[in-house]
Amino acid sequence: MKPFFKKKIMNTEPDKSKELTASISLLNDKLHFKGKVDGNQPISIDYTPPLGDNLGYTSLELLLLSLSSCVGSAMLTFLRKMQKTITACDISAKGTRREEHPTCFKTIALYINLSSPDTTSEDLNKVLKLSEETYCPVWAMLKGNVEISVIHSINS
Amino acid sequence: MKPFFKKKIMNTEPDKSKELTASISLLNDKLHFKGKVDGNQPISIDYTPPLGDNLGYTSLELLLLSLSSCVGSAMLTFLRKMQKTITACDISAKGTRREEHPTCFKTIALYINLSSPDTTSEDLNKVLKLSEETYCPVWAMLKGNVEISVIHSINS
Repeated sequence: MKPFFKKKIMNTEPDKSKELTASISLLNDKLHFKGKVDGNQPISIDYTPPLGDNLGYTSLELLLLSLSSCVGSAMLTFLRKMQKTITACDISAKGTRREEHPTCFKTIALYINLSSPDTTSEDLNKVLKLSEETYCPVWAMLKGNVEISVIHSINS
Repeated sequence: MKPFFKKKIMNTEPDKSKELTASISLLNDKLHFKGKVDGNQPISIDYTPPLGDNLGYTSLELLLLSLSSCVGSAMLTFLRKMQKTITACDISAKGTRREEHPTCFKTIALYINLSSPDTTSEDLNKVLKLSEETYCPVWAMLKGNVEISVIHSINS
């Protein structure tokens, strides 16, 4: 029975290259949610007072993490294909909101700090261009609606 | 000195209605990141094998959580303004990716399950329309790039 069981388990695993799912559940009488994707630690999500109680990430902060990690992943994947050595990578994102509703981001600034002995500023600009134009799905979904800028520094 | 100190602390708190920040740091030699916003538990972010090791949320799953919680927050805020009683709220999101690069979501389906003794389907449609058109910033940032649909059920 074991091989069959194993096979069955594998068949029920989601193919994340095609479809992804996530869920949230309300935890209190304000706006505190538990966010969850199978196999991961839950994420505490909330809004600022008075509507929420600051008990977790806001929706817009999750969007900043989504964009930063998407850009970071595309960028690192390309740099490694170019045989570059990466010893550290930190990205900070700052989103500035519109004053009127919908209070979405007008602009998002990404500050990339890369440690690499053999990556030049030209290399980084090249892979960021590829990410923006083709390989970063989150960037693609924000295009036309949010102005995204990137500032980077490289420690060799 | 105490009042001055308190005032100083308050002045350094970020005004999230205007600007939000988040950061990620690479944790290994693949695509595992630690995501962070001050005051919150870090979020483990990773990609699927072979590029990543499935050690955390993918960027696209974070986007689904961002959208779900944004829609949920706008919807609940309006229903409460209408004096509705909400006893539970669960939202699942399913995003279907494009097959070509950028492999962003073609469509996102939100399944809203609300428990309320006094909310009608008409009420819910009304607040969802307001959220889509004006009050949900994440929805606004995806508009024109992703087709978002909502299916809901109400348990009275």
